[in-house]
Amino acid sequence: MNIALVAYVVGYVLCMEAALMLIPMAVAVLTGVGDWIYFVYTVVPLALAGFFLRFQKPKVKRMTTREGLAAVAFSWIFLAAFGALPFYFSGYFNSYVDCFFETVSGFTTTGATILTDIEGLKNGGLMFWRSFTHWIGGMGILVFVLAILPNMDASNVQLLRAESPGPTPGKVVPRLKETARILYLIYFGLTILHILCLLATGMPLFDSVIHSMGSAGTGGFSNMNASVGAYGNPAAEWVIAVFMMLFGVNFSLYYLLLKRQVKDVLKNEELRLYLGVIAAAVVCMTLNIARDYYDSSWPDAVRSAFFQVSSIITTTGYSTADFNLWPTFSKMVIVVLMIVGASAGSTGGGIKVSRLLTLVKALREEFRRLLHPRRIHAPRMDGRIIEQNVLKGILIFFATYMMIAGTAMTLISIDGYDMESTITAVLSALGNIGPGLSAVGPMGNFAGFSVFSKLVLSFCMLAGRLELFPMLILFNPSSWKKTK
Amino acid sequence: MNIALVAYVVGYVLCMEAALMLIPMAVAVLTGVGDWIYFVYTVVPLALAGFFLRFQKPKVKRMTTREGLAAVAFSWIFLAAFGALPFYFSGYFNSYVDCFFETVSGFTTTGATILTDIEGLKNGGLMFWRSFTHWIGGMGILVFVLAILPNMDASNVQLLRAESPGPTPGKVVPRLKETARILYLIYFGLTILHILCLLATGMPLFDSVIHSMGSAGTGGFSNMNASVGAYGNPAAEWVIAVFMMLFGVNFSLYYLLLKRQVKDVLKNEELRLYLGVIAAAVVCMTLNIARDYYDSSWPDAVRSAFFQVSSIITTTGYSTADFNLWPTFSKMVIVVLMIVGASAGSTGGGIKVSRLLTLVKALREEFRRLLHPRRIHAPRMDGRIIEQNVLKGILIFFATYMMIAGTAMTLISIDGYDMESTITAVLSALGNIGPGLSAVGPMGNFAGFSVFSKLVLSFCMLAGRLELFPMLILFNPSSWKKTK
Repeated sequence: MNIALVAYVVGYVLCMEAALMLIPMAVAVLTGVGDWIYFVYTVVPLALAGFFLRFQKPKVKRMTTREGLAAVAFSWIFLAAFGALPFYFSGYFNSYVDCFFETVSGFTTTGATILTDIEGLKNGGLMFWRSFTHWIGGMGILVFVLAILPNMDASNVQLLRAESPGPTPGKVVPRLKETARILYLIYFGLTILHILCLLATGMPLFDSVIHSMGSAGTGGFSNMNASVGAYGNPAAEWVIAVFMMLFGVNFSLYYLLLKRQVKDVLKNEELRLYLGVIAAAVVCMTLNIARDYYDSSWPDAVRSAFFQVSSIITTTGYSTADFNLWPTFSKMVIVVLMIVGASAGSTGGGIKVSRLLTLVKALREEFRRLLHPRRIHAPRMDGRIIEQNVLKGILIFFATYMMIAGTAMTLISIDGYDMESTITAVLSALGNIGPGLSAVGPMGNFAGFSVFSKLVLSFCMLAGRLELFPMLILFNPSSWKKTK
Repeated sequence: MNIALVAYVVGYVLCMEAALMLIPMAVAVLTGVGDWIYFVYTVVPLALAGFFLRFQKPKVKRMTTREGLAAVAFSWIFLAAFGALPFYFSGYFNSYVDCFFETVSGFTTTGATILTDIEGLKNGGLMFWRSFTHWIGGMGILVFVLAILPNMDASNVQLLRAESPGPTPGKVVPRLKETARILYLIYFGLTILHILCLLATGMPLFDSVIHSMGSAGTGGFSNMNASVGAYGNPAAEWVIAVFMMLFGVNFSLYYLLLKRQVKDVLKNEELRLYLGVIAAAVVCMTLNIARDYYDSSWPDAVRSAFFQVSSIITTTGYSTADFNLWPTFSKMVIVVLMIVGASAGSTGGGIKVSRLLTLVKALREEFRRLLHPRRIHAPRMDGRIIEQNVLKGILIFFATYMMIAGTAMTLISIDGYDMESTITAVLSALGNIGPGLSAVGPMGNFAGFSVFSKLVLSFCMLAGRLELFPMLILFNPSSWKKTK
């Protein structure tokens, strides 16, 4: 392992975080809440740590997969460790572990909170920072660093691969840096549009910004205890539901739209399945809840079902209703959507629609091969043949996902919560969703878990956000051997 | 599809079933319960159907995978459909679907019951038949047919492959028929030994036979409402716990033992992991329940933990305690064991230890490949390299297993049971275990499910027993095309 190079990249990321913290600091001053001082306490050691790590320039600048994965894993762990400090200094949280959990939940765009009273944090710098971590984490900060860093060579594709969600990293244009810039511009543009739409529904500016950053990163932190449901504003609910869905789409499709290649977008198989799953889930759920939970008021039932489905499949985690009280069928649909997740190349988590689509295609091919062993079979995706090693990678990803889930559930179960809470807490953390069911449902929180469970769930959130491998590599002894 | 050939095989299997039904008929007469008449009503149409299907000898006797899978699927569906008739004629069950569910549960060695009062069935022919289906289904009836059928050619390895549990069918000796005979002899011998051991603990003869057939097939039907716990006989509990564990071992290892190749047995990686998982689960569970549920009586806690672990990992499903009332950690361990399952080549269900071991090895290899892309990596199992297509098959099996589980859970959830019951009912059916948790826990039953759910669960049981593919093939339109 070229530790000097990893340290150099991590140092760069920490300096970037210090710079980004100036924004919530400014918000703290502008809103007059007066919590800017906690950011001052943080920025000083953070910037020092960043400069210290960057001090020794690495001799070898070529980054292999190993260094790429380690740089991503450490960057995110340190981002969260330092990002938690303003919360810690404020004294509003019970312990540093709680602050760390909350910040990991923010950067990984999970949106699970350990706060029992969110509104007590006040609409100031800390509240802004909490949601701003979603916005930063949604696109990935290393991509951002790449977009502005001048002198790293082309081998940095490793970084993008390790941080970007989905089976194949979306190189929109041949040059990596250009790709990162385009993606960030689309991200920024959509977020501004989202804020404007929310303002139009009459939501206050601060709240509009908070919720737009939450949807954009598919995070789910709200500044209200009752999440989006608190406003009782159907127009705002529609806006957020639609934007959550939009942020769950592969961003490279927006680039194609900008280039007016509408046909290619409409033909995209993942997009079709993604929209199809949403439509099917909304129909099933509406039929299941309309009569008993919405007094046969169909518009309310449809809006509520659409909001919840969009929120869960994109792994955002906002809620307008306590779906914990809904019938088992709707809850089961929610659990399935938790596992499915959003599209590859979006800001959402989960296993991703395209991975599942590939699995289904591989299964169908396996059948055909059984039935007609002499014919040649090759499953295709968007017209191109799925390569065997891509397929194998996806299968291994799926199996690893399930194994991590099983292990984490067993570890969490020591706390003695009921099965439903235990299972959905892990699925929610691993899929970067936020709420689960029962004790961790949309009206619940993660405050009651033990320190050990909070750390296990933090690991799950990071593993889920970074597509499993960067986090797992830290536990592999052979990663730490010196490069020959 | 060569339908004539499939029909011919199914006909043979039905004739075999008619012959096997003479045994419970004899038991009915000997015990004096007087339920022999229901078997007479069944055997006549059953034998007629069998002879009718066998009437037209197929012109082409070569069996491809397609015919092999279809023959297995239809044989098992018809076996259960006719096997349910004695229960139906007795009038003790509520409906034919209930009888079908119970018989599928029997043949697939699941052991899930829809009876609310088992003891009301009386210790006669019907009770014997119910458990006898476990014994028949454990080893697979087509293997039995093969072992005595004279004139089918070597292509019948397809049948064995489709019916035998595990990723690679255990060909103990080169000749298939010889393999089947050896496996059945071991099976028969161990069952007799089991009965003798139970008699030695003072259990009545009828009960000893019932429970031995239940452990041998890793089924789990008891003739007592409170399962094995009803006897309050610690010695019998130990005997059953040990035999369940033995029937969860790959049978070809017993053949090696008979040939005195002890070293090869001890080196077997699946066996080591299987015993290791059992030991770890027993230790965890004992520590978790000893103080609060057994008043710190360690021998009781160990016995109870070992019994439950052995019962669940082998997918038998007997119980001596209502583990539904145990803490979440123990219940989570049970859910994990439900998915793990027994060894390949045993009579148990689930995903199988060797499949999971291969998955873990593949994952480790994937890591090494990421870290050292230029080195050559080949995961090994028992010293031999795991072939890529075996690995791919296992990965696809795992993914399919999870997808079937998710689909079935969603369908079952329409009934509105709580999440815990819904999830574990499906895992229990798919893994051929028997009890789940909550409403379907060891003291519960499947009586309350709707007809639709009972059929979905029956499908799961068959899919789980037949290793998914034979059942899925029935839904694939291209299976039904005529052979060119």
